Amino acid sequence: MDKINIGKTAFINPMPVVIAGTHSNEKPNFMAVGWISSVNLNPPLIAIGIGSHRCTAKGIEESGEFSICVPDASLLEKTDYVGVVSGNKVDKSGVFDLFYGELKKAPMIRECPICMECRLYQTVKLPTHTMFIGEIMGTYTEEKYLTDGKPNLTKINPFTLTMPDNNYWSMGDPIGKAWNIGLKLKQK
Amino acid sequence: MDKINIGKTAFINPMPVVIAGTHSNEKPNFMAVGWISSVNLNPPLIAIGIGSHRCTAKGIEESGEFSICVPDASLLEKTDYVGVVSGNKVDKSGVFDLFYGELKKAPMIRECPICMECRLYQTVKLPTHTMFIGEIMGTYTEEKYLTDGKPNLTKINPFTLTMPDNNYWSMGDPIGKAWNIGLKLKQK
Repeated sequence: MDKINIGKTAFINPMPVVIAGTHSNEKPNFMAVGWISSVNLNPPLIAIGIGSHRCTAKGIEESGEFSICVPDASLLEKTDYVGVVSGNKVDKSGVFDLFYGELKKAPMIRECPICMECRLYQTVKLPTHTMFIGEIMGTYTEEKYLTDGKPNLTKINPFTLTMPDNNYWSMGDPIGKAWNIGLKLKQK
Repeated sequence: MDKINIGKTAFINPMPVVIAGTHSNEKPNFMAVGWISSVNLNPPLIAIGIGSHRCTAKGIEESGEFSICVPDASLLEKTDYVGVVSGNKVDKSGVFDLFYGELKKAPMIRECPICMECRLYQTVKLPTHTMFIGEIMGTYTEEKYLTDGKPNLTKINPFTLTMPDNNYWSMGDPIGKAWNIGLKLKQK
């Protein structure tokens, strides 16, 4: 066999990059997160995996609320910054221009094309990380990011993260319609 | 405020695209999955969100094992195909060339650049979907996908999925080093 076993290497790439926000020590705090996924359709639930010792983890546990904002490529440096400095040491409440929706402890970032406010739905403790499952209570954007009322990926211009090489990447080109391009194999 | 609330819209984009494999009805079965994330560092745990009624969900529950394979763009049509046809109706065991590692019910796809075999670690039941958390027991690739012994993203050439527009996308260009490019803001 030409396959080689390279050990227990997680390779889930490329990852979406979001900024999780919550209140920690009674102040808005933010952290870059690549471990995020939708996990339920109705109600819309998303899950994020965060190191259990992180300031953001404690903040979500205490407040029961958090935000998920999708940065565009122009926010690359700030996004990385809130991922590398700890809210326990640095006040990150002034890094972005903030706004709130219905939840009072889910600070959202005005500069981000898409922001979601989430209520903590379930907490799953794992050995080194905690998975926070949040219910999306509202999704905020601006007209300029929509086409026919729907989010337009090209206008939003998100970026991705890959590990273990630790690179950020721009999005490429559309290469096919999902739940569609495979139908041509159905007859074969 | 220029922000508008577009309702409870999950926008976690772009998503990685993988193929989850397991044994369903005693045969290898596969399904395209975009709802996937790492969730724990040590041991390496990944989570996938799958509709609870899906054949793959039943298969993972019964076998306690599954695989996660990362397709490259040349497998776009086959990946979409195993996402649109149900294993309850169609035998998908012959779509790919298969191999196994240590686990007997985690069929992996020879055509995929990266494959992981997982043991079911924890199951989280949600209203419409089930989150399967798997521990990675082995990761398989080929020399041609490595540079200095590490997975090379450009050689692997994975693709992404976005919703709700339902498009597949190629990867773009590297735009910065993670846990690094933000450090320049630390002094400001």
